[in-house]
Amino acid sequence: MKALKERILRDGKCFEGGILKVDNFINHQMDPILMKSMAVEFVRRFAGADFNKVMTIEASGIAPAIMVGYLLELPVVFAKKKKPSTMENMLTTSVYSFTKGTTYTVCVSKDYLCPGDKVLFIDDFLANGNAAKGVIDLVRQAGAELVGMGFLIEKAFQHGGDSLREQGVHVESLAVIESLDNCQISLRD
Amino acid sequence: MKALKERILRDGKCFEGGILKVDNFINHQMDPILMKSMAVEFVRRFAGADFNKVMTIEASGIAPAIMVGYLLELPVVFAKKKKPSTMENMLTTSVYSFTKGTTYTVCVSKDYLCPGDKVLFIDDFLANGNAAKGVIDLVRQAGAELVGMGFLIEKAFQHGGDSLREQGVHVESLAVIESLDNCQISLRD
Repeated sequence: MKALKERILRDGKCFEGGILKVDNFINHQMDPILMKSMAVEFVRRFAGADFNKVMTIEASGIAPAIMVGYLLELPVVFAKKKKPSTMENMLTTSVYSFTKGTTYTVCVSKDYLCPGDKVLFIDDFLANGNAAKGVIDLVRQAGAELVGMGFLIEKAFQHGGDSLREQGVHVESLAVIESLDNCQISLRD
Repeated sequence: MKALKERILRDGKCFEGGILKVDNFINHQMDPILMKSMAVEFVRRFAGADFNKVMTIEASGIAPAIMVGYLLELPVVFAKKKKPSTMENMLTTSVYSFTKGTTYTVCVSKDYLCPGDKVLFIDDFLANGNAAKGVIDLVRQAGAELVGMGFLIEKAFQHGGDSLREQGVHVESLAVIESLDNCQISLRD
């Protein structure tokens, strides 16, 4: 997606260890107009898919997911990163974060991820794919069906996308980073 | 706001200790159409205010805030609940959560909350007002100006709104809960 790629090149910042910061327009400050345009692009790319619910993980996935849900008039569920004390009836899974070197719990209520649900998952980044695998596990536990996964930015050199596609998951990424070597952003055409 | 009040009465759930759960349409599953309608109502209520930025706190504030930002074509900054390891140049403050009995750190980058910024803060709940006080502290540290605070739901019996209004803050709440005594939801007309 041209507008996103241009924005990444303009405002994205590279750090050692394959880290790309897009705090200027996605992860801390958000550009709502770009967010809506990206949601429109997801609608287009998943036009052939049949789903009744949008799912994401807090916090940076919420903005693109709510825009997709708004355009399609579908409910949006955000999985939480730790089990809230006031929540019962939860499905949980563990996700290892390479970036932070820690394992965290992701959970979702059985009230909102239900047997028969057809789920489109939306998130900001696809890197190693560990969070995505956690989501696949939650969807399986719920007896729901995953119809696709849409990411704003895929870091191809961390291969999470390869793994998901090999499993037959319909993955769409609006911008694909081939490399961040030498702190240079190299985007796939 | 009528649609929100009706939804609270239909889908809100009370728990001991003055806890209102709106996980069905705000805090876990989200209704994007209602979210947009609430954002329109904030635009109306803050029509006389002059601001260049919308601010919120992750995670449940993000959806209403991005909708306000989208309608007004303004950037949206979400404060984070702990200091990310990859972030420098941060302003931080401490917030005590009555619900959880713990203190957490809220932070925002000086890159996105700047001297001269005129900020509209949007969040899901106003209860004791401790998170709101933390935001006021961050805005003050940044040398920015707070022009108003909009909340989806205010729990009037926890008096955070009284305190903010006494300080002269322009507070707008789309639904006001007078009481949750005996696990009954009592809304202000």
